[in-house]
Amino acid sequence: MDAAEESLRKSLAVMQSAVEVQGNAVRSLKASGASKPEIDSAIKALSGLKLEKDTIEKQLQAVISGGGGSSSISKEAFRQSVANTLERRLFYIPSFKIYRGVAGLYDYGPPGCAIKSNVLGFWRQHFVLEENMLEVDCPCVTPEIVLKASGHVEKFTDLMVKDEKTGTCYRADHLIKDFCNEKLQKDLSINPEKVAELKHVLAVLDDLSPEELGSKIKEYGITAPDTKNPLSDPYPFNLMFQTSIGPSGLSPGYMRPETAQGIFVNFKDLYYYNGNKLPFAAAQIGQAFRNEISPRQGLLRVREFTLAEIEHFVDPEDKSHPKYSEVANLEFLMFPREDQMSGQSAKRIPLSEAVSKGIVNNETLGYFIGRVYLFLTRLGIDKDRLRFRQHLANEMAHYAADCWDAEIECSYGWIECVGIADRSAYDLRAHSEKSGVPLLAQEKFSEPREVEKLVIAPVKKELGLAFKGNQKKVLEALEAMNEKEALDMKAALELKGEVQFYVCTLEKNLSIKQNMVMISKEKQKEHQRVFTPSVIEPSFGIGRIIYCLFEHSFYTRPSKDGDEQLNVFRFPPLVAPIKCTVFPLVQNQQFEEVAKVISKSLTANGISHKIDITGTSIGKRYARTDELGVPFAVTVDSTSAVTIRERDSKDQVRVPVTEAASVVKGVTDGHSTWEDVWSSFPHHN
Amino acid sequence: MDAAEESLRKSLAVMQSAVEVQGNAVRSLKASGASKPEIDSAIKALSGLKLEKDTIEKQLQAVISGGGGSSSISKEAFRQSVANTLERRLFYIPSFKIYRGVAGLYDYGPPGCAIKSNVLGFWRQHFVLEENMLEVDCPCVTPEIVLKASGHVEKFTDLMVKDEKTGTCYRADHLIKDFCNEKLQKDLSINPEKVAELKHVLAVLDDLSPEELGSKIKEYGITAPDTKNPLSDPYPFNLMFQTSIGPSGLSPGYMRPETAQGIFVNFKDLYYYNGNKLPFAAAQIGQAFRNEISPRQGLLRVREFTLAEIEHFVDPEDKSHPKYSEVANLEFLMFPREDQMSGQSAKRIPLSEAVSKGIVNNETLGYFIGRVYLFLTRLGIDKDRLRFRQHLANEMAHYAADCWDAEIECSYGWIECVGIADRSAYDLRAHSEKSGVPLLAQEKFSEPREVEKLVIAPVKKELGLAFKGNQKKVLEALEAMNEKEALDMKAALELKGEVQFYVCTLEKNLSIKQNMVMISKEKQKEHQRVFTPSVIEPSFGIGRIIYCLFEHSFYTRPSKDGDEQLNVFRFPPLVAPIKCTVFPLVQNQQFEEVAKVISKSLTANGISHKIDITGTSIGKRYARTDELGVPFAVTVDSTSAVTIRERDSKDQVRVPVTEAASVVKGVTDGHSTWEDVWSSFPHHN
Repeated sequence: MDAAEESLRKSLAVMQSAVEVQGNAVRSLKASGASKPEIDSAIKALSGLKLEKDTIEKQLQAVISGGGGSSSISKEAFRQSVANTLERRLFYIPSFKIYRGVAGLYDYGPPGCAIKSNVLGFWRQHFVLEENMLEVDCPCVTPEIVLKASGHVEKFTDLMVKDEKTGTCYRADHLIKDFCNEKLQKDLSINPEKVAELKHVLAVLDDLSPEELGSKIKEYGITAPDTKNPLSDPYPFNLMFQTSIGPSGLSPGYMRPETAQGIFVNFKDLYYYNGNKLPFAAAQIGQAFRNEISPRQGLLRVREFTLAEIEHFVDPEDKSHPKYSEVANLEFLMFPREDQMSGQSAKRIPLSEAVSKGIVNNETLGYFIGRVYLFLTRLGIDKDRLRFRQHLANEMAHYAADCWDAEIECSYGWIECVGIADRSAYDLRAHSEKSGVPLLAQEKFSEPREVEKLVIAPVKKELGLAFKGNQKKVLEALEAMNEKEALDMKAALELKGEVQFYVCTLEKNLSIKQNMVMISKEKQKEHQRVFTPSVIEPSFGIGRIIYCLFEHSFYTRPSKDGDEQLNVFRFPPLVAPIKCTVFPLVQNQQFEEVAKVISKSLTANGISHKIDITGTSIGKRYARTDELGVPFAVTVDSTSAVTIRERDSKDQVRVPVTEAASVVKGVTDGHSTWEDVWSSFPHHN
Repeated sequence: MDAAEESLRKSLAVMQSAVEVQGNAVRSLKASGASKPEIDSAIKALSGLKLEKDTIEKQLQAVISGGGGSSSISKEAFRQSVANTLERRLFYIPSFKIYRGVAGLYDYGPPGCAIKSNVLGFWRQHFVLEENMLEVDCPCVTPEIVLKASGHVEKFTDLMVKDEKTGTCYRADHLIKDFCNEKLQKDLSINPEKVAELKHVLAVLDDLSPEELGSKIKEYGITAPDTKNPLSDPYPFNLMFQTSIGPSGLSPGYMRPETAQGIFVNFKDLYYYNGNKLPFAAAQIGQAFRNEISPRQGLLRVREFTLAEIEHFVDPEDKSHPKYSEVANLEFLMFPREDQMSGQSAKRIPLSEAVSKGIVNNETLGYFIGRVYLFLTRLGIDKDRLRFRQHLANEMAHYAADCWDAEIECSYGWIECVGIADRSAYDLRAHSEKSGVPLLAQEKFSEPREVEKLVIAPVKKELGLAFKGNQKKVLEALEAMNEKEALDMKAALELKGEVQFYVCTLEKNLSIKQNMVMISKEKQKEHQRVFTPSVIEPSFGIGRIIYCLFEHSFYTRPSKDGDEQLNVFRFPPLVAPIKCTVFPLVQNQQFEEVAKVISKSLTANGISHKIDITGTSIGKRYARTDELGVPFAVTVDSTSAVTIRERDSKDQVRVPVTEAASVVKGVTDGHSTWEDVWSSFPHHN
């Protein structure tokens, strides 16, 4: 709780008792039959106190709702106006809408689908092609054994409570979160200790056990939001969509919760394909599924989504990256663990500094953080609303070496859109163990290396003489000693010639003499190292990135005559769903012919575009296309030259008909910029 | 059964009895103690007959296995050699291989995944962009109500039988098919009548009811293939993967069996998006699922696959297509229904002729058939092994107006890869009915049209006087009459002044007089037509197309020293997984630097490629890259110029280092051809 809030809550408590005291005073004056002027003056004082209390309440309300009261309202309004535009122009559609939809399932309509396809195309260019990654494409249907090995069958759960009468299900943590937030925001009378407690609960919510969540629900008297019925105890619900493979009903399967497992199980083949060399990366784009208990936050938390995942396999002893220097000089908002713990905020740090100081665990992790930054900002994500947040110790899996989330700020707060984790050897080991197939890499030494190895050589003959039938068990026990045990025995034998040795398979101590075993450290030559590679995994939630892009790209500006606000998406050409519109200025056969010629040439060049031959005013046609985020409009107003208009500046140039398509192609392919066009062609007003 | 087979079977039967007769003769000679020369001569005759029988058997065997005996063996060998190459070079990988896989699930490995991505990219260019289609992207998880409306919950089934002891499941029709084929191919002794019967069963297999299939299984004594146990009666098994949406267990859902339904349920929004104008097409690329009972045929029949579907919505009264003339002159193999019925084979027909003669139902269907032909052949499908086969009446859904499959011939026979169906208004009507949301289009008339309409005007006052409290029910019954009933009543009233009229809500006849109702036909003006659009659906099985492409692209050629056969895929540059390889001729720092410069420039141009700096011989490196279908290889053998080699001709040209990347880009983008390159640069031996 910040200082302002705390001081206001205290003042409010003081003022509240003052109001009560004065109220009592008024009542007792009235009861004692005091004079009218006396009573009036007491009532006036009471009104004054109430007014003061109201003022403090309002200030507190403003502080609580995040810096100025109107901000959270305007956030809500902004989100609504983006959502209205997106839905009206079919960027997305609630799935199966005519059947009243299904929570957490959305379609991409035509412009949304084009944006998704552009984002994925750029992802392939920026990651797969640039790094020569091995892209694979595995099925969504996955047999149970794979997801048992990965831990999803056991651990991919959320805690759920049920309305005890209707059976409606809720996420236990969501109910507690809602309760705490509601209390903190609406109940101004709670004391600072209570405020601190509620805030603490919110902070540790993710770490609470089912029992702890259950007792909080009881303690706070939380009931089912829709019916006020009592709730069951929390219990885990597995978030995977379950199904059955084949007709027998005996082969359970799941719709994959991530695409990564398909890559891990193919490690052996992919390593071979890469010439048995490390490092290399495999990549996959595909659908993933999460049967959310009760989806919220619109497009951000859905039951089916597209993931783009990279698994970069690397020698755990060498996590350098050959192209690291290409990103080392980048500088952007980072939010290391330490800064989060000490209550600071994210700050701009040069990537090279974060890596050299060990804030980021290794070069390869740093390289991918840099590449993700470039990817997101080139798509049009605002760099001032993008930060890389390091996982706190309690957020990270025990096996992970380090983990950073690319978080993008939107009206819902800071949203995790890309996770970049060093998962060490965990996944390959898990599948290796479950399948019995070794998933290993080798490093062949250019020349053999000398290593010291412990050698335990029992002398069979002597053991046989001493222990007869127990000989074999003694021999095995000797060979099973670890280095320390063996060296201790060696020392004792050298000192005393004899030592007591517990053979657990015989459950007794036996006396071992110096002639029964030779223990030594010997130098051996090794020609290679065999090890399980580490994996560094950048994992992209494509739908979340696209939603944030929608918010970061949206703005409004007044129409020409100032009577309305027009919506614009400032998508870069790379992302824009349609690259240009072609209008004849007026309905006219000649102009329409020219428009068709230009359209044909754009199609041949693979430039998505739209012809608009409606008779609507040119201003309305511009407004329509701005709202779809179309960066360029070609207006045909003669048979020799056309006007090309840029969406955001609204600047226009005159270009010969024969050059129109190639100018648009150049500037949408990224081979030229609007500035180049602006300086090469005559301007137009 | 063809004439040759029939005549051979007859000869074989004759020869068989001749052998038997002669065998008996030998035995009776021996029994009667005939002389040795007599017996020897009879035995010699028997051997002669047996030899003749063998010859006939061999001929018959050859005829049965399809034109020459060795052909089916070589088909099998060819398929195996393609499969070996595909699997060894990771074009595909059996999914979850380290867990011993799951039947019917395959991964695309790196080159396969790149080919798939290229095929889909070209599909988008050829269909979506070229036709300005509205592409959408809907979830795979689908609630039950949608698939009830579409008919999948009830009808998307195969008939299954179970091994009564082990519970193993089989497709009933597959068992019968295997039995008949085995009998026809291996049992040479069956008579022509039996052969005809088995062939008839194979022909009508798809139309047999569960009961008919069951009785065939009994009649033929078919048992479980693995155990020889008896089989259950056939019963329907739904092929959709079922799951449950949300945690309650009360919302059944399925993994979609096709992507089309996602488009149909969005018709209303998409029609609005298109400015309420017809025709327009929507398209979708995505995963679809089919829980096959027992998948066979490798990559052709799988449990999860990528579909690319187009739904072209059109006015049922006007199925012309504005771009039809662009494909009308194409000529390719077509196999109309009539020709199939009369036992002819597919023949080359100009598309314009097929449409004008009404063999293809309408222009739009014809247009898409033409576009599909262009799509497939540009990918590299051999036009002589591609045919368009019209569905027979019994194959087509009752509502379909016409349906053609693009079938591609491969080692498995003719495989349906694209279906192009005119589904009339069926799907939109089904969803409209189930959801209660009208899915309609309007045609506004440029000027109002006059139409004759029936008007039934009951006279309330007279009805009230005559029927008192029943007045309302009589009035409703009168208004509910159809045109014929009303006109009959009008005629009767004019003739007799009175008529008996059965009011079903009152369950009695009443007497209606001429003054109680006025019936007339009036001319009215209509301003628009409201109707359910027809939909023409081209639906592409991407995995099947890719598999056929593998077979059509594969060939072998001897290595330089002739000691082995090398594999080559002749993928066109458009499809090739990697567009070029860059080799330094020998391991050498300077050459490697040049290779890196060229590689960087290729990456910047978006050209997928591979550097091979191993010291392997140049011949081996070419062989490796030919086997991946890489069309061009750039060999660096100086710092100023390189050699570019074309895969199939093995021709080589000398190109300056600075131009290497742009030459490769031009010829892979399709902006130039190898012939252009060949004529512009010096040749190299």
